Amino acid sequence: MTRFALTIEYDGRPYMGWQRQAHGPSVQQAIEQAVTKITGEDAAVFSAGRTDAGVHAIAMRGHVDIEKPLTPFRLMEAINAQLRPAPIAITACDAAPDDWHSRFACIGRSYEYRIVNRRAPLTWDKGLAWQFAKPLDAAAMHEAARLLLGLHDFTTFRSAHCQSQSPVKTLDRLTVSRHGDELIIEAAARSFLHHQVRSMVGCLALVGYGKWSARDLRAALEAADRNALGLNAPPDGLYFVAATYP
Amino acid sequence: MTRFALTIEYDGRPYMGWQRQAHGPSVQQAIEQAVTKITGEDAAVFSAGRTDAGVHAIAMRGHVDIEKPLTPFRLMEAINAQLRPAPIAITACDAAPDDWHSRFACIGRSYEYRIVNRRAPLTWDKGLAWQFAKPLDAAAMHEAARLLLGLHDFTTFRSAHCQSQSPVKTLDRLTVSRHGDELIIEAAARSFLHHQVRSMVGCLALVGYGKWSARDLRAALEAADRNALGLNAPPDGLYFVAATYP
Repeated sequence: MTRFALTIEYDGRPYMGWQRQAHGPSVQQAIEQAVTKITGEDAAVFSAGRTDAGVHAIAMRGHVDIEKPLTPFRLMEAINAQLRPAPIAITACDAAPDDWHSRFACIGRSYEYRIVNRRAPLTWDKGLAWQFAKPLDAAAMHEAARLLLGLHDFTTFRSAHCQSQSPVKTLDRLTVSRHGDELIIEAAARSFLHHQVRSMVGCLALVGYGKWSARDLRAALEAADRNALGLNAPPDGLYFVAATYP
Repeated sequence: MTRFALTIEYDGRPYMGWQRQAHGPSVQQAIEQAVTKITGEDAAVFSAGRTDAGVHAIAMRGHVDIEKPLTPFRLMEAINAQLRPAPIAITACDAAPDDWHSRFACIGRSYEYRIVNRRAPLTWDKGLAWQFAKPLDAAAMHEAARLLLGLHDFTTFRSAHCQSQSPVKTLDRLTVSRHGDELIIEAAARSFLHHQVRSMVGCLALVGYGKWSARDLRAALEAADRNALGLNAPPDGLYFVAATYP
């Protein structure tokens, strides 16, 4: 048996999310089926994060155990060939120690969120960014984002379906920058609650067009109450960008 | 009657190209139909360039004449509303002089061509970039591109269907730069022959992976013969990015 570490890029639009679901297609299932076709073995693919329906990944990390003797390069090529034309690609593949686990060994996760700040509808970016018509003040959003850094009870920014044992998390990075009509929000933490990035982005957008002050954002955080959430951003603009390992 | 200048973004994947065609959907037809629904008038939309099937535009310039009294803002909003869910968006709209013509007044056209240089298949970029598996030397491509600058007979880089009166054109700009695994080729000229950018990009790719030397590229140009063309790049990676007016 060889454990292979995978780096995975995917377009989340056609999927119910990363995780295998009874009621629709998932990224996990697509990769597991590809591996089974190649090896004839039952395959279980694990990942650093379980993205929601419609959320994308630039470099999700995952792993799979395989009995059949294959080089990492041949495995990567074979999975990509089997996946066609699904919008999922293995962009890197390496042999890993048998006890390395893409989820449990992960000590840092990074996301990016893309907002296209314009009135005109999106064309090729439809489903790949959040189109937001009201002018957003990226500097005000960046300043307000600092209130969320560090150790907090993030209950306000947590989906009712969150399975995390605790709502207390440490947010290591949350930045907002403008590039033409596009805003990029970068978030990093050891781990995130379900919907946490989307909920933080939604509330930062309220700050960005002046509906909320930074004080309102702080009050929402301190309420530690899902009802205090101002806005949850759609999945469209969210990308899993990196997993960190020791 | 008011003449309106339009800036138009579109995803070329579902279209036969800019120009109205009997046998399939076109960007021109989609916008003309939207205008007719808004005004009840026959509409003729002109543009600075006529992109091919599958070619995209970040900022195509065009114009349309309308009798119905409408502000530029209302017209833009109405066209965008009518176009939904087509991947075409009017990103700017202004009243223009009655004798301003988006095609005939245009003194410069710029294109970008995106190559994703990796083995893995594309995901969200499928149809939006050219995936090229062999490693490309962007510096060698950039250096070779300089041979094509200036006034030349570009017959080698001209489609058999080209309607231009002369194959002699002046190429003002052709640069190649690498950004991670992506190569961007920028081209600018007063006007281009049919397939000229794609044909230049295809031959630069041959230089990029060492199949052609810069000398081969020069020989292809000097042959002034379509049979000397090494490779025509697919439409996927091509974007019309700007039209210049005096």
